[in-house]
Amino acid sequence: MSAVHVIGAGMTQFKPHPTVEVHELARQAAWAAIESSGVRPEDIELAYAGHAYQGQCFGQKVLLKIGMTGMPVVNCENACASGASAVWGVVNAIKAGQADIGIAIGAEKLASAKGGFTPLVADDLESSMGRVMPSVFSMMARKHMDRYGTTLDQLARIAVKNRRGGVRNPYSPWRDEITVEDVLAAPMIAEPLTRLSCCPVSDGAAAVILASDRVARRYTARPVEVRAAILASGIRNGVGMADDHSEMTIRAARRAYEVAGIGPEDVDLCELHDPFTIAELVHYEDLGFCAPGEGGRGVDEGWFDIGGRVAVSPSGGLLARGHPLGATGVAQIAEMFWQLRGEAGERQVPGARVGLAHTVGGGVTQIEAGATSVHILVG
Amino acid sequence: MSAVHVIGAGMTQFKPHPTVEVHELARQAAWAAIESSGVRPEDIELAYAGHAYQGQCFGQKVLLKIGMTGMPVVNCENACASGASAVWGVVNAIKAGQADIGIAIGAEKLASAKGGFTPLVADDLESSMGRVMPSVFSMMARKHMDRYGTTLDQLARIAVKNRRGGVRNPYSPWRDEITVEDVLAAPMIAEPLTRLSCCPVSDGAAAVILASDRVARRYTARPVEVRAAILASGIRNGVGMADDHSEMTIRAARRAYEVAGIGPEDVDLCELHDPFTIAELVHYEDLGFCAPGEGGRGVDEGWFDIGGRVAVSPSGGLLARGHPLGATGVAQIAEMFWQLRGEAGERQVPGARVGLAHTVGGGVTQIEAGATSVHILVG
Repeated sequence: MSAVHVIGAGMTQFKPHPTVEVHELARQAAWAAIESSGVRPEDIELAYAGHAYQGQCFGQKVLLKIGMTGMPVVNCENACASGASAVWGVVNAIKAGQADIGIAIGAEKLASAKGGFTPLVADDLESSMGRVMPSVFSMMARKHMDRYGTTLDQLARIAVKNRRGGVRNPYSPWRDEITVEDVLAAPMIAEPLTRLSCCPVSDGAAAVILASDRVARRYTARPVEVRAAILASGIRNGVGMADDHSEMTIRAARRAYEVAGIGPEDVDLCELHDPFTIAELVHYEDLGFCAPGEGGRGVDEGWFDIGGRVAVSPSGGLLARGHPLGATGVAQIAEMFWQLRGEAGERQVPGARVGLAHTVGGGVTQIEAGATSVHILVG
Repeated sequence: MSAVHVIGAGMTQFKPHPTVEVHELARQAAWAAIESSGVRPEDIELAYAGHAYQGQCFGQKVLLKIGMTGMPVVNCENACASGASAVWGVVNAIKAGQADIGIAIGAEKLASAKGGFTPLVADDLESSMGRVMPSVFSMMARKHMDRYGTTLDQLARIAVKNRRGGVRNPYSPWRDEITVEDVLAAPMIAEPLTRLSCCPVSDGAAAVILASDRVARRYTARPVEVRAAILASGIRNGVGMADDHSEMTIRAARRAYEVAGIGPEDVDLCELHDPFTIAELVHYEDLGFCAPGEGGRGVDEGWFDIGGRVAVSPSGGLLARGHPLGATGVAQIAEMFWQLRGEAGERQVPGARVGLAHTVGGGVTQIEAGATSVHILVG
């Protein structure tokens, strides 16, 4: 089976874009990815577009804006894993021989008057009674603190670390670093999670160009290989569940390591699904970067900083770059592309060779079905 | 590249199901497909779910109802081609080595109070001024009549033919045949299209089980091979366009014939996208079953009847089985499975060996982007 490589990437800044429509954001990201790849638009044979709320035939409308019509386009949704599902779809389609070059686009507009994503389902009883994202994660935090002795200080340090990345990332809107004290003193959203423990509501888009082994090196001497593309579904574990970890993340990560032929100790760089500080901490453990319960200690000892065991979310992650749902999974792959080629500027992880991108989508509705993705890339 | 086969199929009746929620309709179809295939639910490794309006993580919610969690699930949307895109996605994922067995599910609930699909986009100026589906196709009909001399009688005969199929199809709600006079005398929807020239608003679901060449014959001695799976996008041609034909259908069909190594003259059976009588007539020509302008003559001479050149929509098609958007493309593949195995009962096309399934989605919004699918199956 032919390998698939990333050969180009582009994205918009993630922030509220009140005067730019979502198709235009996606067009900008797609065009930036195309330009960076050296591919001619007419050589792109296939597209997936990931989004959660942007209406019918979204990908077609975006591509039409740059004159690219005709190719197969699939619009896909998997809540916060929508963009990652788009990447996964393009990888499969290239491996299946449908195309040599494809584009994965992800986009979302959440910060507009028409947007918003809580409650996820209008008639969801639990959401309407307050079981929305921040409250679910607040309970997850309490559980982890209770079980393992994780501290508020440790959780706050995750926000500080990711903001440090965001400040160095031109695609993030943040320009000021924060301290543990800032995080703890910020307005309370869902105790113990303050506003600085939660990702912001953003608009934005990202795109990557993927190519078969057969053609990738025609466009770049340094393609970044997608060594494993794993999607899984399941029940989001959390409050009321047997465990506070993400069973589907654990399963997807194990499978990804198996397919890639590496272990978590080989990962230099991870873009991790961190909508709340507690999510990042739990996922350190789920992805095998430390043992269950060790996340807090790892934060204290700098295991997840640049220069530590594995640099987690040097981009700023969802916390400090932003989280326009459909865009996030694609932006992670774009970040991998830049990092693994040494092109990540001030946020560069020195010598990064193996990267892992992780998203989790869904889970705060009556039926707690969700999706998770793990992609392993090698530069 | 390994071949992919259909090894099971299931669907609900297409009709208003006011008291059954859409996830339950999809569960019923999925379960029927699983049972028909002989596959154990736990052997299914992957799913795509196609729908246009049914909310986040739709496929996961459906599969959770039958205890199937864990597998990769992608929810996809391509307007009326959503279900066909799900089939295409599963075929690619199997060819890419992600799975040996996958399920494609399509479902939609349109006939409920919450449903409805006109206008497609709330703020679409053209839709709000009356440029909705029936009016677009009415203008297409007028254009074809003007250019080629196609008659109202010829268009009406298509509705009569398809109702004849629907009456013989237990998945259709119709039990009475109709005459040309009935079609012409029915209430006018968008001149010259009467109510019997338009597909009904339906709820329903369909599912098919797809398997790799490696495992298909473990489950059935008579798998139905997916010889070509082609998706294309483009502009819906129609009013205001240079042609009244569907350029993307023409392109997708040509590519499908090329991949399958056959021509239109080899097709025994076609499930064609016929939301309106004129659409069926135009697509005869687009799919190469006759020359442009010859569709009317072909109707008169019975070319598209069972026993003619190619039996078109013996199931009743969208016109006389129904058109719950996401379900339609999957239902077409289910029909192929039954027909090409000689299991289609009273509507059986004798000796059918090669089948073609065709959908067209999108196109009545400000930006006229759409999708089309052509699948060629061999029994």
